[in-house]
Amino acid sequence: MQYFEDFKEGEVFVSRGRTITEADIVNFAMFSGDWYPLHIDKEWASKTPFGERIAHGLLVMSAASGLMPVTEMAIVAFYGMDKVRFVGPTRIGDTIRVEAETVEKKDKGELGGVVTIQQKIKNQRDEELVLATIKIFIAHKK
Amino acid sequence: MQYFEDFKEGEVFVSRGRTITEADIVNFAMFSGDWYPLHIDKEWASKTPFGERIAHGLLVMSAASGLMPVTEMAIVAFYGMDKVRFVGPTRIGDTIRVEAETVEKKDKGELGGVVTIQQKIKNQRDEELVLATIKIFIAHKK
Amino acid sequence: MQYFEDFKEGEVFVSRGRTITEADIVNFAMFSGDWYPLHIDKEWASKTPFGERIAHGLLVMSAASGLMPVTEMAIVAFYGMDKVRFVGPTRIGDTIRVEAETVEKKDKGELGGVVTIQQKIKNQRDEELVLATIKIFIAHKK
Amino acid sequence: MQYFEDFKEGEVFVSRGRTITEADIVNFAMFSGDWYPLHIDKEWASKTPFGERIAHGLLVMSAASGLMPVTEMAIVAFYGMDKVRFVGPTRIGDTIRVEAETVEKKDKGELGGVVTIQQKIKNQRDEELVLATIKIFIAHKK
Amino acid sequence: MQYFEDFKEGEVFVSRGRTITEADIVNFAMFSGDWYPLHIDKEWASKTPFGERIAHGLLVMSAASGLMPVTEMAIVAFYGMDKVRFVGPTRIGDTIRVEAETVEKKDKGELGGVVTIQQKIKNQRDEELVLATIKIFIAHKK
Amino acid sequence: MQYFEDFKEGEVFVSRGRTITEADIVNFAMFSGDWYPLHIDKEWASKTPFGERIAHGLLVMSAASGLMPVTEMAIVAFYGMDKVRFVGPTRIGDTIRVEAETVEKKDKGELGGVVTIQQKIKNQRDEELVLATIKIFIAHKK
Repeated sequence: MQYFEDFKEGEVFVSRGRTITEADIVNFAMFSGDWYPLHIDKEWASKTPFGERIAHGLLVMSAASGLMPVTEMAIVAFYGMDKVRFVGPTRIGDTIRVEAETVEKKDKGELGGVVTIQQKIKNQRDEELVLATIKIFIAHKK
Repeated sequence: MQYFEDFKEGEVFVSRGRTITEADIVNFAMFSGDWYPLHIDKEWASKTPFGERIAHGLLVMSAASGLMPVTEMAIVAFYGMDKVRFVGPTRIGDTIRVEAETVEKKDKGELGGVVTIQQKIKNQRDEELVLATIKIFIAHKK
Repeated sequence: MQYFEDFKEGEVFVSRGRTITEADIVNFAMFSGDWYPLHIDKEWASKTPFGERIAHGLLVMSAASGLMPVTEMAIVAFYGMDKVRFVGPTRIGDTIRVEAETVEKKDKGELGGVVTIQQKIKNQRDEELVLATIKIFIAHKK
Repeated sequence: MQYFEDFKEGEVFVSRGRTITEADIVNFAMFSGDWYPLHIDKEWASKTPFGERIAHGLLVMSAASGLMPVTEMAIVAFYGMDKVRFVGPTRIGDTIRVEAETVEKKDKGELGGVVTIQQKIKNQRDEELVLATIKIFIAHKK
Repeated sequence: MQYFEDFKEGEVFVSRGRTITEADIVNFAMFSGDWYPLHIDKEWASKTPFGERIAHGLLVMSAASGLMPVTEMAIVAFYGMDKVRFVGPTRIGDTIRVEAETVEKKDKGELGGVVTIQQKIKNQRDEELVLATIKIFIAHKK
Repeated sequence: MQYFEDFKEGEVFVSRGRTITEADIVNFAMFSGDWYPLHIDKEWASKTPFGERIAHGLLVMSAASGLMPVTEMAIVAFYGMDKVRFVGPTRIGDTIRVEAETVEKKDKGELGGVVTIQQKIKNQRDEELVLATIKIFIAHKK
């Protein structure tokens, strides 16, 4: 279990990969209720600059959250996110991974502290897809 | 279809509701791969300050994205998010809705402009659950 | 395998049961994209004459289709439906079953014929939920 | 919100599109429990006149229901359907849309009235897939 | 309904087929939480001896369980399995079927008896994928 | 990454928990196609000795597979299982965990070796639900 004390500024975690499939996009459109045609209408998407359906931004972030070792962290709560930028499209068949660097730690007293993680979600060609600053409230080691 | 020109600063959209069920939490844990026990282990969650399983932050944001009238907007791309804060827990059986105020518009030239929306996700008791600044790139009216 | 020749007018098939759960309603709202609040907003539904969320009509018909012994029938194509009436609400936790009577057979030549089935979908209290006349194109025995 | 008074005979609604994917067919087979091999057995389907797996009729109708602007309608209940005909196959990768014409309105007194909608579900080549007469009970404007 | 008395040693049941799709693998990874990259990372899998993503062993067994006529059997409980061997990979697009031979019956008294079934799961090229000895507790005919 | 060399006979791994919900049972019935009424018909199940719906045996094993640290193991292939016994029912709301002891290692030459794991799946009351001997082919450390 990784406690507040165990996070080190400058440390980088690189995740395993997950291929984003057509099924994932369909499943996420269903779950979220976001049926924007860029995601689920092949004909419509073929006429956009992307030329084809692409994944929802929140799909990519959700998949990334599961690539992080969350069950190994002593998380108290998800505090928030800053400066999330969707910088490149995730296409059907792309394989994403997360590079996550601990950039800041703020002790908040007895309960724990906020760990700030700079997250880069990349594809198999090392292109950046999403950049996000993630803030998680982590417990102190007891 | 709502173009860049149609967004007005200060205008507020209030969405319909969606009840977040145990099935939604199970489905989102499955989709994201985030099996943090606060979300899916009833025994573990009962010993936290929340006292029970609560929804993932990104679940709530994903569900909120589908409550927005996205298929009515001339979206070019999801630009990003700023200052996302998870300020209250979403419990099984809570019904969420979105209040979204257009707070800024920046013309970016020929392709369209960035519309900034201040999003508040609330429950049926009017408690704030998530606050987020959403930036969407919207096309010009042709 | 049940061919056109094997269907007898007047014969009745009674299916096993399936409990319609909250998860089914959530899953069907997701699949269909039909988020009408009567199905997925607990607060809204509590103020209707039904007093609670009820299942989508097409959910009940879809579940019923899987309760029919379709993999035992020599189906060429689903021809159509007549006079479908949603006569009672399906509530969370209700268990549905199908009573299906063969009411007509029309030979259509070499390929097979159309078998008309009068379908009653009922709950565990024997209340009728959906009535439908189903027409299936069934192959001849070779 | 669209009330009984707001429907006009002769008015036509044309929906956005939705691409029906292999994942949709798998998901609908799972949901409905209808595993007829024409839908989910590639080998078996390749020997039929269709030459490949096709979507379930009720899948197409369910997806169409979510393409209709149901959350904008003051629906009291789904009344029924008449003369549903499956006139063409929906293949993997086809994009469906709905053309819906209001063809009749019958006031039923205080609660509202029945609006009859002639629904045509078409693919990206304008071929008709499903024809259906849909009857919805719509509330009066208060 | 098939009771203990109705099973005959030496009798073989051959199931219909089910094509295992990319969506099935994604759905099973999600359900089980088993995201081993051989199943869901296209890049990683391409460097293994299999050359591509393959289905989880338990996915194939789960799908096979639904190809068995379980709703026709008077099952009291699933007793267990012996000597399960995953002898060949199930690739995306392969169509599986089950060949199940009753190899032993043991009366256990009033409640019923244990029927042992030797199960072979094969693909469309008749290659064996999984071999398993399945033991089911079946009720006596009353 | 855990290689063949890293497994030690006698070592025990205890997993985190996962609550098995009604949604899980519905989802697994859908995925597998196993709609045996003990799992999905509340009325039918209430008349069995279990008194209520219980989870499928393969559901519990599938969920357990995702509770094992599979993405940390240098798995070549899932070799097989021996003596799987379903010794207790998993009810809706039960929380399962896995206790897994390495009981045998057999070097198979250059590619790696077979590690045999004795798996006990238990609920929150420490009752044994499933016992299984799992055999995984694990790579050598390079």
